[in-house]
Amino acid sequence: MEGVDYLRDERKKSEFDVEAMKVAWAGSREAFQVSDRMAKLVANDPVFEKFSKPTLGRKEMFKNTLRKAAYAWKLINDLHLTEEEAKWLRHYIDEPNYTDLQWEMFVPALEGQGSEEQKRKWLPLAQTMQIIGTYAQTELAHGSNVQGLETTATFDHETDQFVIHSPTLTSSKWWPGGMAKVATHAIVYARLIIDGHFYGVHGFIVQLRSLEDHSTLPGITVGDIGMKFGHGAYNTMDNGVLRFDRVRIPRNQMLMRVSQVTKEGKYVQSDVPRQLAYGTMVSVRQTIVSDASKALSRAVCIATRYSAIRRQFGSHDGGPETQVIDYKTQQSRLFPLLASAFAFRFVSEWLKSLQTDVKQRLEAKDFSTLPEAHACTAGLKSLTTAATADGIEECRKLCGGHGYLISSGLPELYAYYVPACTYEGENVVMMLQVARFLVKTVSEMSYKQPVGTADYLGRMAPLMHNNCDVQTAEDWLNPSAIVKAFETRAVRMIVDCSQRIAKFENQEEGFAELSTDLVEASLAHCQLIVVSTFIQRLKQEIPGKGVKQSLEVLCYVYALYLLHKHQGDFLATGYLTSKQASLANDQLKTLYSKVRPNAIALVDSFNHTDHYLSSVLGRYDGNVYPKLYEAARKDPLNDSDIADGINQYVQPILKQKLHLAKL
Amino acid sequence: MEGVDYLRDERKKSEFDVEAMKVAWAGSREAFQVSDRMAKLVANDPVFEKFSKPTLGRKEMFKNTLRKAAYAWKLINDLHLTEEEAKWLRHYIDEPNYTDLQWEMFVPALEGQGSEEQKRKWLPLAQTMQIIGTYAQTELAHGSNVQGLETTATFDHETDQFVIHSPTLTSSKWWPGGMAKVATHAIVYARLIIDGHFYGVHGFIVQLRSLEDHSTLPGITVGDIGMKFGHGAYNTMDNGVLRFDRVRIPRNQMLMRVSQVTKEGKYVQSDVPRQLAYGTMVSVRQTIVSDASKALSRAVCIATRYSAIRRQFGSHDGGPETQVIDYKTQQSRLFPLLASAFAFRFVSEWLKSLQTDVKQRLEAKDFSTLPEAHACTAGLKSLTTAATADGIEECRKLCGGHGYLISSGLPELYAYYVPACTYEGENVVMMLQVARFLVKTVSEMSYKQPVGTADYLGRMAPLMHNNCDVQTAEDWLNPSAIVKAFETRAVRMIVDCSQRIAKFENQEEGFAELSTDLVEASLAHCQLIVVSTFIQRLKQEIPGKGVKQSLEVLCYVYALYLLHKHQGDFLATGYLTSKQASLANDQLKTLYSKVRPNAIALVDSFNHTDHYLSSVLGRYDGNVYPKLYEAARKDPLNDSDIADGINQYVQPILKQKLHLAKL
Repeated sequence: MEGVDYLRDERKKSEFDVEAMKVAWAGSREAFQVSDRMAKLVANDPVFEKFSKPTLGRKEMFKNTLRKAAYAWKLINDLHLTEEEAKWLRHYIDEPNYTDLQWEMFVPALEGQGSEEQKRKWLPLAQTMQIIGTYAQTELAHGSNVQGLETTATFDHETDQFVIHSPTLTSSKWWPGGMAKVATHAIVYARLIIDGHFYGVHGFIVQLRSLEDHSTLPGITVGDIGMKFGHGAYNTMDNGVLRFDRVRIPRNQMLMRVSQVTKEGKYVQSDVPRQLAYGTMVSVRQTIVSDASKALSRAVCIATRYSAIRRQFGSHDGGPETQVIDYKTQQSRLFPLLASAFAFRFVSEWLKSLQTDVKQRLEAKDFSTLPEAHACTAGLKSLTTAATADGIEECRKLCGGHGYLISSGLPELYAYYVPACTYEGENVVMMLQVARFLVKTVSEMSYKQPVGTADYLGRMAPLMHNNCDVQTAEDWLNPSAIVKAFETRAVRMIVDCSQRIAKFENQEEGFAELSTDLVEASLAHCQLIVVSTFIQRLKQEIPGKGVKQSLEVLCYVYALYLLHKHQGDFLATGYLTSKQASLANDQLKTLYSKVRPNAIALVDSFNHTDHYLSSVLGRYDGNVYPKLYEAARKDPLNDSDIADGINQYVQPILKQKLHLAKL
Repeated sequence: MEGVDYLRDERKKSEFDVEAMKVAWAGSREAFQVSDRMAKLVANDPVFEKFSKPTLGRKEMFKNTLRKAAYAWKLINDLHLTEEEAKWLRHYIDEPNYTDLQWEMFVPALEGQGSEEQKRKWLPLAQTMQIIGTYAQTELAHGSNVQGLETTATFDHETDQFVIHSPTLTSSKWWPGGMAKVATHAIVYARLIIDGHFYGVHGFIVQLRSLEDHSTLPGITVGDIGMKFGHGAYNTMDNGVLRFDRVRIPRNQMLMRVSQVTKEGKYVQSDVPRQLAYGTMVSVRQTIVSDASKALSRAVCIATRYSAIRRQFGSHDGGPETQVIDYKTQQSRLFPLLASAFAFRFVSEWLKSLQTDVKQRLEAKDFSTLPEAHACTAGLKSLTTAATADGIEECRKLCGGHGYLISSGLPELYAYYVPACTYEGENVVMMLQVARFLVKTVSEMSYKQPVGTADYLGRMAPLMHNNCDVQTAEDWLNPSAIVKAFETRAVRMIVDCSQRIAKFENQEEGFAELSTDLVEASLAHCQLIVVSTFIQRLKQEIPGKGVKQSLEVLCYVYALYLLHKHQGDFLATGYLTSKQASLANDQLKTLYSKVRPNAIALVDSFNHTDHYLSSVLGRYDGNVYPKLYEAARKDPLNDSDIADGINQYVQPILKQKLHLAKL
């Protein structure tokens, strides 16, 4: 029935102040208010409805997304939204489109890599959307290895121009969003060639389409790369393929902040340190980690609410069946993901402070912490996106058969989210970078003190020798016992790899040979970061009745879940006995019982609107079954009782007249 | 270039006879020939092309699938295909449609549950497709728990009819394939009520649509439940919702093989043993396990071929970059899946012999092995479908960004495959059934000898006490060392759970409390089955140069990969030292190097056509990049340079005239 809250009893069970938890989740009262206001603005505007999407074909869907983007841009201007507000607005519209590239890639690239003069010229155009840009780096055969890009930018002394060219099929730019149909400009990464010499890969501003009639310019071939995973998901975006046939651009369209080409064709490095790029990288990865927590929280919210509504088995004397959420098997899959959403949320907040720190140091030309910051963000990007993608699918499976319906919201969320495992640094490649940093840190330790998230490596001696002293399940409810376990596991895995690499004559060969072990060691290091950050966060003040206590429970769930999942590491490194590991697992089950009464209130704390969730199963009011019905009715196949094709292809079979049918 | 084999060098490296391996994979020369002939028949017929699917809307796609189904039925009749051939034909058409339900659910249900008289009446109609049937069991709020179904079938003495009724919204039949638009009949599972008494859930044949004009009959409300995961995948199928408003059927349309209702309204059990249903269950699960190996082999074939084509990093002196397949991190993710495909293939072949055994025993009314057979098939269903679904996604990720394109074939394969984790017994529920069997077996051991796949439990005493004696990495290349490790791990986990359950006053409560541990123990048991079956298979003759040797390598890869992945179990149960676990991991890396030269030939052995793979990345000739281009060009967004919506929604932004635009 409409207007009834089917989850009311669940909400009554909550032992904490939900409104205060919303603030804790958002990071601050201000942050909560901004996002809440924008979420409601989007949810209440019919232009932004999403339920019709599954019924649209590619072209209609794309057109509809263009409409939403235009309407959003109008709102942003008419309502004089701040940059922060605009960002939330776009987030809640929840449909990938070209403006994502404009604001997250094109403008930041101009800001970060453009000279002052270039910024004066191009930024106002981009900021007012008189031009629409994309970021053309990846090529058909070149992803992770940027130095392998084939597109060339050859300096022509005579005309003072660069000639941008795609020498091979595999050099075609492939994947950039917005590039196929919308972008008028692109920042194109190409091999700079002057007088036959190669000067590395640089960015160039290249116009793709006429600002008059939007037609592609001469020498440019551009198109869409076709459908991607899912029905909606990224299919609202025109990811493109782009080829250049000797396209000429003025010399001043090479991005010249860090290095320049002079009129004379001289390649000059400016005194701007190259390391500045790290600032952007840290910022991009902070956003990715923050997005991971949002996506995971969304899936967890849907699965938790539906697990409280759905009943299966366990009926006594004709009474209702058991709520699925009361099964331990359900809890053991769901609650660690709930805890992970919070863990990722807090680590993303912490990354903001790292970002500020890196920025200040860069300004002071202190590059000493960069390798650590780089490794830390690479690892967290990898850990959080992998866990989130898997977590979304797990939530979908936790919804049983109905999770397979697009109306559950989960299939599309997965299809939309999963590329995060690949873009901005493929996850395994990222972990290998972390490993390189860790091995180097260990090898340099005799004369260089590890810093930041690697500082525990400086306490190697005790960590290598002292073992765990936990004796009861309760002993595991102790932050220092947990941190020590994770530190020891990480340090021992890293040292083991380092020692084995040292035995190889060729270190590179050793690194390659042990790469799978190195990835496991890196993961151990990154999990330590997330666990420690969660624990650190709990040492700060967190207002609201029961809020900190509930978060403590989740923190333990997160840590002990990882400990059980990676039991092999903890046992193999000799830090734990199997008895101690088993006590941790016992404690974990006790913790699930503590989460249970708060589960619905915890997912309410994410403050997701029904519009944002776009899930019948995850509705706030729990009115699932009638709404599943309603959603189903809208499928085009239900337009008529007798579907298109029945008379042509089914009736002849039934009437045994197939030989007469035209097939 | 067309006609060039870009994988020729890879194929030359192979150390075994590929044609002989094809036979080993297929099971026999005859099996190979049938499937090969059908694969080619489908691949060469333009009616069965699949590449246009991503560009079709739901209605067009559905209609196109109806056309293919009709055409296939015509072929089956015109060419006088055998049942076996017809099955392969439908398999290679590779689009879920209503005939799947007809042949896999409707006809078998009539055969298994119909009385002789009913079979005489209904089977000829179904077998000639004069009626088209579906299997209406699952309801909107009732999946796993069949006994909780709400639909009622009330006997009406006066008219000698049953009244089929949907008393609530949640009792709506929901999910059955083919039900929305095509099926004329359904086997409907409903609570049998006679004179106010409930006699359990039974199947009833109910006509849904007119055989004249295909319109729905009075009292029937039927429709499609809407879009599902992916773009194509199961969206070619009209999964339906169905409600009954007091629909009357003659008494003789209750399926009466096992129990009957007489004219007088008496409920009578026949002397046909109820256990016969187990025969069907074993057969259905054998098919599911066999399908798992097919789906996984398909994904592995794509990822392996593309990993040999794709190059990234590692270029020396301007030479080509390293083939991705040469990276240990790639091998460690890919080769265990390749090995799993073979492992699942062999276990599915073995299940056929189990099926025969169960059938013979049922006929002899020997029910002694049924619980073991039931647990074994439930567990293997769960293990293989879960590993396959995850494996397909892993293969997709192993293809980098391009794996996200529908033209890679992998997103749709995943979306199509993943419901196997949920249907025919949700995977965790299945594992809990296995656990129940194992705990019971242990508790009864003093007077009952475990049989079949559980027989090792009878050797509990030595397995509980003797530990592993492996001393070198080479020692792991020993089938008995491996089987003993897996047996010990399983037995110790099961015994540990049993002992802990015994401490609870209420055994059911103990079972619930320890359910997550029980699921882990069941998995250990099932992995042992797969490993042992693989090893047993290798003891048989396998003709062909190098075939058995290559399979031995894969068998060790499969076993040692599991051992490393579940290292925690092996260490916690005390069977292995961490040194021994580490030696297994070292051996695993050596094995990867042995797989490497044979990788392409191994996936060639699956004998998948390019049509069946429907993957640009997995093409037999490796001509990936030009074909990615070609596939992209077909997207509807590429119909015109200036896409629909650009003039309306993008131009006004660029020209700063958004205030004038109609949004």
